[in-house]
Amino acid sequence: MIKVSVMYPNTPGARFDHDYYRDKHMPLVKARMGESCKYYTVDRGIAGGAPGAPPTYVAMCHIFSETVETFQAGFGPHAEEILGDIPNYTELSPVMQISEVVVG
Amino acid sequence: MIKVSVMYPNTPGARFDHDYYRDKHMPLVKARMGESCKYYTVDRGIAGGAPGAPPTYVAMCHIFSETVETFQAGFGPHAEEILGDIPNYTELSPVMQISEVVVG
Repeated sequence: MIKVSVMYPNTPGARFDHDYYRDKHMPLVKARMGESCKYYTVDRGIAGGAPGAPPTYVAMCHIFSETVETFQAGFGPHAEEILGDIPNYTELSPVMQISEVVVG
Repeated sequence: MIKVSVMYPNTPGARFDHDYYRDKHMPLVKARMGESCKYYTVDRGIAGGAPGAPPTYVAMCHIFSETVETFQAGFGPHAEEILGDIPNYTELSPVMQISEVVVG
């Protein structure tokens, strides 16, 4: 299994609507991807590693798919609609990464 | 619930022993933390977001605890032993972040 992590860098003053992200955007991703997204998780950054340090990412999601090809086949046809929804909750540009799930 | 993410920046040429990390280091963390670590996950970075781009992180783990205080109470007394094991699999310095689990 693989996971696609979408990580929004924590930028002072930047807008990030966590409610919209949880209640509208991620359900849209799941609805469009169907079974090619087995499930997803959502995180809200609260702190960094050192005492008092801010989190590196203000929010993250992780989309779990059987393979990279499964993810691409499910996401690709809906990329324009899904990416077009981002301005509804933030102006931040996310960092993306694909990982192999070693321990799930 | 909270998760503590430990993310190792992908640095060309750097050593990272994924087998040791999966088979020795993370089981050590779980053994020492006991029930204060409900469970953990491990990722191995395989690609970035753009075609051909490398992953931002070569490996990540996520440790799930009920609260930040639970995590600290479980990790703190064993921090020296756990952190002292890092040179056995890498010279990289990880980025740490604590997140609230919004969707788990």
